[in-house]
Amino acid sequence: MTDKLEHHVARGLDDLRALVALPSVSAQGRMLPETADAVAGLLRAEGFGVQQFPGTVAPVLLAEAGEGPFTLLIYNHYDVQPEDPLELWDTPPFELTERGGRLYGRGASDDKGELASRLAAVRAVREQLGHLPVKIKWLIEGEEEVGSPTLERFVAEHAAELQADGCWWEFGGISPEGRPILSLGLKGVMCLELRCRVADSDLHSSLGAVIDNPLYCLARAVASLRDEQGNVTIPGFYDDVRAASGADRQAIAQIPGDGQAVRDTFGVRRPLATGPAYNERTNLHPVVNVNGWGGGYQGEGSKTVLPGAGFVKLDFRLVPDQDPARVLSLLREHLTAQGLSDIEVVELEAHQKPARADAGHPFVQACVAAARAAHGQDPIVHPSSGASGPMFPFTGGAGGGGLGIPCVAVGIGNHAGRVHAPNENIVREHFARGVAFGVELLTRLGEMSPPAGAPASGAEAGR
Amino acid sequence: MTDKLEHHVARGLDDLRALVALPSVSAQGRMLPETADAVAGLLRAEGFGVQQFPGTVAPVLLAEAGEGPFTLLIYNHYDVQPEDPLELWDTPPFELTERGGRLYGRGASDDKGELASRLAAVRAVREQLGHLPVKIKWLIEGEEEVGSPTLERFVAEHAAELQADGCWWEFGGISPEGRPILSLGLKGVMCLELRCRVADSDLHSSLGAVIDNPLYCLARAVASLRDEQGNVTIPGFYDDVRAASGADRQAIAQIPGDGQAVRDTFGVRRPLATGPAYNERTNLHPVVNVNGWGGGYQGEGSKTVLPGAGFVKLDFRLVPDQDPARVLSLLREHLTAQGLSDIEVVELEAHQKPARADAGHPFVQACVAAARAAHGQDPIVHPSSGASGPMFPFTGGAGGGGLGIPCVAVGIGNHAGRVHAPNENIVREHFARGVAFGVELLTRLGEMSPPAGAPASGAEAGR
Repeated sequence: MTDKLEHHVARGLDDLRALVALPSVSAQGRMLPETADAVAGLLRAEGFGVQQFPGTVAPVLLAEAGEGPFTLLIYNHYDVQPEDPLELWDTPPFELTERGGRLYGRGASDDKGELASRLAAVRAVREQLGHLPVKIKWLIEGEEEVGSPTLERFVAEHAAELQADGCWWEFGGISPEGRPILSLGLKGVMCLELRCRVADSDLHSSLGAVIDNPLYCLARAVASLRDEQGNVTIPGFYDDVRAASGADRQAIAQIPGDGQAVRDTFGVRRPLATGPAYNERTNLHPVVNVNGWGGGYQGEGSKTVLPGAGFVKLDFRLVPDQDPARVLSLLREHLTAQGLSDIEVVELEAHQKPARADAGHPFVQACVAAARAAHGQDPIVHPSSGASGPMFPFTGGAGGGGLGIPCVAVGIGNHAGRVHAPNENIVREHFARGVAFGVELLTRLGEMSPPAGAPASGAEAGR
Repeated sequence: MTDKLEHHVARGLDDLRALVALPSVSAQGRMLPETADAVAGLLRAEGFGVQQFPGTVAPVLLAEAGEGPFTLLIYNHYDVQPEDPLELWDTPPFELTERGGRLYGRGASDDKGELASRLAAVRAVREQLGHLPVKIKWLIEGEEEVGSPTLERFVAEHAAELQADGCWWEFGGISPEGRPILSLGLKGVMCLELRCRVADSDLHSSLGAVIDNPLYCLARAVASLRDEQGNVTIPGFYDDVRAASGADRQAIAQIPGDGQAVRDTFGVRRPLATGPAYNERTNLHPVVNVNGWGGGYQGEGSKTVLPGAGFVKLDFRLVPDQDPARVLSLLREHLTAQGLSDIEVVELEAHQKPARADAGHPFVQACVAAARAAHGQDPIVHPSSGASGPMFPFTGGAGGGGLGIPCVAVGIGNHAGRVHAPNENIVREHFARGVAFGVELLTRLGEMSPPAGAPASGAEAGR
């Protein structure tokens, strides 16, 4: 299939080369309007109407083209991570360079490679069919690498314009065995700091007989948050966890591997889950993590000090339909019940809510079928990544808010793709297969009715 | 009483001035043999036979004089802490300087002031009686401020020469109200580090769903070591704790205050004990303290990392007759029983065993009576300081080892004495009262028989 698409692949790579040449580093405010203009130009050349909106540090693009029964929202971003440390790149980061079947450059994978492969697919479909049989709404921001500070508000304010039957999410990967990996969700994340102070200053530890210890109090707090198996023990924590559907469970059961490669690679001594539990926990279980701990004397040897204060940094990874604000409230109630109400709980940054599409949703099934056709292999379907991202404003959830659009991440990344690091790369063949996937998906969506039970285009904005 | 001793006080301060002028900083190896020689010269001038032995960084002096039914061991040290930060001294650290009734200088209190006041008392007694009615064995080391690395071995090797009926310990203090404070013991101390590693490197915290967290494991370990009231929950921990005698409990009940001054000064939010429990816990209770904790991300904001490893620093403050080696063994068994046998337990430095004389011991009673006579006020008797020091080799305990000599700390320190800090000082009147105390003690001991039930001089070495 990819052979007959080769000239679209080549042209897509030309687009990618042009985009990689623009160092659109959002963290440094470099070349963002210029890159937005370049992307808008590529879209207009394929018949898209393009609107540009101000973001926080970079313009937001909203493009529209095509007509058909199915409305597809595509989400990508044109900004990239900084290139440093420059000395670790084997070739210049902003020159797309082919070596050994791979294409190297900052943004080659994340996310300009995804964007260019999708645009090539649109071009191929228009050439094959003479028209675009799907209404495409393409949202492309330039602030994803700095936490998408505008996205949630933008989606809420443009709910009607963004309403769609399905959303093609900005990333995706291909397994070491060449199987496409589809992710149907992202966990939510909430980052907190617990702070405990027992005195204005550090004291001699002989006073530990008569004054409590802040690091012990934090230990008691942290030990009370979960059990030895990794299950969270805050009362009410699991109340809002959405049950996985049969399709979700079936998908998880078919994910190959049980994490042995991760355990071997990183020398893991304390696995919490092996066997089938590995993929079940990764996809479906919310967890609390201790990210860091500090207080008292941390140098060589000993110092018999009673620290005046200490802190712990935590993140909660949440699953639908848990609400970070409610979890925060439950945590505070729990600490109070433990006699630890004096532990200060500080939210370190804006939280992200969890999002997940059902594996049985017709749009998911269309993506699965398109991936199988394009790659010639059965896809691996992850109901949720273990990681987090700004998907909730699109999907929404039981708690309200969000557009109610199922999101599927499917793309061209690879396990050695060094995203965010020096020598970021894609495999050329994966790019070609990504173009083929886009052609398959757009063609199939053009032939299907709006999914039963899914929102009609533009009809139920903001639910 | 101090009036008729005034010329001995003045001469004692001359001795102190000469000793302070010698910067005998053991941590820096400065002037140690010279200071040992100066001290030996002062002792010989009062009729002491003086032997000098090599220590680890400074000579050990063992002096002997007098004859009588009671053998008194005196323990002091001639080394001092470093003087820096020099800029915070109001007058030169190695020039004894009088201002407002106080004498300032490094070692003015710790421990040259104690040494000089005791020598002045010997001189006064010899003048008054024409002889020294007590056999005095005076052990003076030059390595106390670097942890007394030679002391335990020295005491064991010279057990027969050091045997005595009571030991006058190197420090002591006077309360803000002018009451002498006697300490009859020191807690033991054992400094440990707990280390937990779950992987070779830090990992993305999304893996926290399937890999355990080292900081959580440490939290569980630390939370399991004690309860909310500060009682240690390691099975068997209290087995060897010696019951306090009626005299001990009576002494504790008479200690003024309940720590309110400490709580006010340091803004303490979480007292473990107020009221009578404050002094009971300080004197009699063993505790575990968390001195420091480190691992993972400790910078500003959040980082969603699963740390590869973490550590906790602990000290145990122990009481007679707990044995640090047994406590270490109980801790390891406890961690294993908690499923935490992979937590590495590292002893950070040599531990010190606890030591305590019974408040009812005749030598203690003689010290109490002498202090009452010298100060004109009832002494405050602490069965044990909350702090630690190398007293066990002298006292011994139920577990064997040590000389079996009760030790009493009584001296001239004051609460604003800034020991180890810039502007170290003593109150001149306290020095004079210290001389008077020595005269009272030596006179009383000269009139008493060897205490019944206490070891006879030199007869039961090494028990």
